Amino acid sequence: MQETVRVALDAMGGDNAPGELVKGAVDAVNAKENIQVILVGKEDAIKAELSKHTYPKDRIEIRSASEVITTEEAPVTAIRRKKDSSIVVAQTMVKKGEADAFVSAGSTGAILVGGQLVVGRIRGVERPPLATLIPTTKGVSLLVDSGANVDARASHMVQFAKMGSIYMEHVIGIKKPRVAIVNVGVEEEKGSALVKETFPLLKECSDIHFTGSIEAREIPHGGADVIVAEGFSGNVILKLYEGLGSALIGEIKKGMMSTFRSKMGALLVKPALKETLKTFDATEYGGAPMLGLNGLVVKTHGNASAKEVKNTIFQCVTFKEQKINEKIKACFIKKEENE
Amino acid sequence: MQETVRVALDAMGGDNAPGELVKGAVDAVNAKENIQVILVGKEDAIKAELSKHTYPKDRIEIRSASEVITTEEAPVTAIRRKKDSSIVVAQTMVKKGEADAFVSAGSTGAILVGGQLVVGRIRGVERPPLATLIPTTKGVSLLVDSGANVDARASHMVQFAKMGSIYMEHVIGIKKPRVAIVNVGVEEEKGSALVKETFPLLKECSDIHFTGSIEAREIPHGGADVIVAEGFSGNVILKLYEGLGSALIGEIKKGMMSTFRSKMGALLVKPALKETLKTFDATEYGGAPMLGLNGLVVKTHGNASAKEVKNTIFQCVTFKEQKINEKIKACFIKKEENE
Repeated sequence: MQETVRVALDAMGGDNAPGELVKGAVDAVNAKENIQVILVGKEDAIKAELSKHTYPKDRIEIRSASEVITTEEAPVTAIRRKKDSSIVVAQTMVKKGEADAFVSAGSTGAILVGGQLVVGRIRGVERPPLATLIPTTKGVSLLVDSGANVDARASHMVQFAKMGSIYMEHVIGIKKPRVAIVNVGVEEEKGSALVKETFPLLKECSDIHFTGSIEAREIPHGGADVIVAEGFSGNVILKLYEGLGSALIGEIKKGMMSTFRSKMGALLVKPALKETLKTFDATEYGGAPMLGLNGLVVKTHGNASAKEVKNTIFQCVTFKEQKINEKIKACFIKKEENE
Repeated sequence: MQETVRVALDAMGGDNAPGELVKGAVDAVNAKENIQVILVGKEDAIKAELSKHTYPKDRIEIRSASEVITTEEAPVTAIRRKKDSSIVVAQTMVKKGEADAFVSAGSTGAILVGGQLVVGRIRGVERPPLATLIPTTKGVSLLVDSGANVDARASHMVQFAKMGSIYMEHVIGIKKPRVAIVNVGVEEEKGSALVKETFPLLKECSDIHFTGSIEAREIPHGGADVIVAEGFSGNVILKLYEGLGSALIGEIKKGMMSTFRSKMGALLVKPALKETLKTFDATEYGGAPMLGLNGLVVKTHGNASAKEVKNTIFQCVTFKEQKINEKIKACFIKKEENE
């Protein structure tokens, strides 16, 4: 028998809360047997949404939380003060072992701070990074850290590489993932002081397949499976990915609508193009896990649809089934013993 | 009468040397009266190319240089040792006032090092940045520094902002350009230690129109006219721009060729799309100037075509006509006097 995976879902976070979140939960439990979802948030609002759907009643429950943390609030203050917020209540469930995973489309800052303060770090992990799957022409790559730790240090970067490698191998299923560090050139003497300090440390790691530096130009072409970056550059990469993708697609659509002739053509290319652009659509790949915590914390897009929420819940199942946290723990405990 | 602008062109640099470079020079002098080009490099090779074209003989001359610096060579060593290389010979002409500007499609590293060591900095300029025009849905923005100075400091960033602002206003013609600093969020408390240190300094500058932080997501949508970045992140932005653009366009072309129906459509949309994608094509905008030197140094793409070379030469004309260096000098001298 498959073990049940219990996901605490922040029903109040994101632009489409609670509607799309509740629908995503319903779709997830209807699709897979071994999922249990706990919807955390304002009971009346959640009940109203749930009443629209059909689902196995014993696999979705509600945990009441009266407060909501908004994206405008300062994360540290919000996590400390709003003890009855959906984020704090749900993360506490993970901390206590009442849930295996926490999923939210809410304030990234609050999710990250709560991850550290409420859920807590795995022993030996210095800075839990946010690991985001980004589309490439060859499939997906994992960008780690995509923004949790600005001003990260070399030792943090090495941990990002190790945890990212474990995730990519066991959740995404890429054997011996190629790990590369973002740099301004591929020659070994190039780079910032941080990259120069990190590079030899990565080279020494026997438990990852380090392939050297990667220039940002090669990221969209799938130049590496795990892209190691300091939180500031990682965030710049992630956001430019989103911005440039949407800008280019917008311009192409505008171009296609510019003449009568091109409009006719657009009708013909549309179905094929839709398929292509889907592979470059981040929402296909679920959310971004925060790695290295005592339990799983996953951030989905603020504008997540039911489909993305469902995919993110499935991702939590794989994470638990593949025992990712046990593997991370083993990796860091082994390291401590060796030192 | 218009003043003649003398451009020393590195005939040996880049993937298409000397053919496209010589052709670009010919096209430039044929198009505008007040341009004089000095082709620097191996005389025989240049003469062979020149013989293919018709042009006013008195406005193109050859300056012999027997050596070539390749992109594989360590820049500092190459500049110091290869005194008779096209880069060192041409930059020495700028230094001596025998040319107003130097244009090269060769090794970026060597051009930057030579800019500092051979041409030299304007008094008061700490770190000359590379300023690259990047396409946006609204036109172009200037990314400064796009990679000359990794690990730049706050005081350098402030200078990038000021010089970038002067360039954008007087060469590109944008009145009161909006200057923003690349950051991981728009809230004032966000950012790396460097951004937090730089932000208040930019806010204090009375000679620029500082609009605050910009997230990388907004760059392609034209969120600011001058994008201030530390050299590492700036380089990541520039290269991801190139890589993601080419990856997406490649995927779209593949998508269009995937079915019979879409192939028919592609024929119809092609002309309109070509026009659209042209606006997102960096080669339309000439090269990247290194700002803050005693003379103009411009880096063009390694694969620059004759058209890009010609546009870069025109850019040198505007740079001189608009007295950009005099304006930069005035800005820094004024600053020194105030201190």
